[in-house]
Amino acid sequence: MQDFIIIGHKAVTAGDFSLNDMPGSAGRMDILCRCINSVFFLSHDLRRNVQAHLLLQGGPNPSRIIRFNGEKLRYLNPDERSAGALIKKALEVDNISFLETRSTPGVWIREGDLNTLLSEFSSEGRKIFYFREDGEDIRGIAEKVKDSVFILGDHLGLTEDEEKLVMEKSTGTISVGPLSLHADHCIILIHNEVDRAAFGQIQR
Amino acid sequence: MQDFIIIGHKAVTAGDFSLNDMPGSAGRMDILCRCINSVFFLSHDLRRNVQAHLLLQGGPNPSRIIRFNGEKLRYLNPDERSAGALIKKALEVDNISFLETRSTPGVWIREGDLNTLLSEFSSEGRKIFYFREDGEDIRGIAEKVKDSVFILGDHLGLTEDEEKLVMEKSTGTISVGPLSLHADHCIILIHNEVDRAAFGQIQR
Repeated sequence: MQDFIIIGHKAVTAGDFSLNDMPGSAGRMDILCRCINSVFFLSHDLRRNVQAHLLLQGGPNPSRIIRFNGEKLRYLNPDERSAGALIKKALEVDNISFLETRSTPGVWIREGDLNTLLSEFSSEGRKIFYFREDGEDIRGIAEKVKDSVFILGDHLGLTEDEEKLVMEKSTGTISVGPLSLHADHCIILIHNEVDRAAFGQIQR
Repeated sequence: MQDFIIIGHKAVTAGDFSLNDMPGSAGRMDILCRCINSVFFLSHDLRRNVQAHLLLQGGPNPSRIIRFNGEKLRYLNPDERSAGALIKKALEVDNISFLETRSTPGVWIREGDLNTLLSEFSSEGRKIFYFREDGEDIRGIAEKVKDSVFILGDHLGLTEDEEKLVMEKSTGTISVGPLSLHADHCIILIHNEVDRAAFGQIQR
């Protein structure tokens, strides 16, 4: 199972945002939507053995964790509005608590923060990687990152405090190439590396 | 210069479509929008030495070629609606003809079809590649595909006739990995290969 944590520093935490203005009034919700696309979509299917954990830190109810599970996920199309609609529905769930409540098939929501996720994955013995330009090149370490947890930030990256928190629990940092890319593009590159290792296609 | 041709078989060719329904009534316009994002966006900049040629084949005015040039491009944000708005404006240009008319900075529109594009690139001596699952793995041939033209289709791939046309003029077929991916994801993988070659980062 691959798990992707994506931090939306300004992503709003109430369901009354407009799908017509996700970059603006919804606090760059569009970034999270594109990450959902990258995590799950193949040409003719969804990736099943992956999860996305969206960490929404904007107002009025910071913060929320929305978990998408590929095995159970339904009603997701590749366009941004489709993911946005599922996020919206999740935020509209009544009585969100520290325990997950299921919103739509394959989507759960709860209160929680980065520490919540890091502690849980850590205690399960999962390897945790995050992205830095000076990180280890993912090519050649695909076996190492298989079934890992990846942490990505939105346009604001990781804050200093978040990075400190992550560094305590992480296995390492990775890089996917020489240029600085958006989170949803990084996810595609990770998937490709892991796919190739799974099919024995790494060229060395 | 890298050029990406993306074929939208049903993408509408009038500017009166709704940005709120790009997958539906606009004929999977969302796919073209996501390809624009993949072609151009870096974390903190746009890629400058690339172009996207959207081939819109839906009604009422098939077909249209909308060219995006990275050097001149303005007013593009990463979200689908932003690319959609630029496409919409281009389709609203008066008196679209076989000669390009500039719509917004970095965006031109004209009448034309796949043959138009293939003939032009061919006569300039450009190498043309298209995607097939049995194509040559892009890893290891990055030098060969540098400054090439890539042809991708939407959810309908390439029709039999299109493939015949392409095969006459193409240098070869490429594959980006073991799984069948959406066009916008393939573009990310091509960029990464070419980036790595440019920065001497290919692992062999």
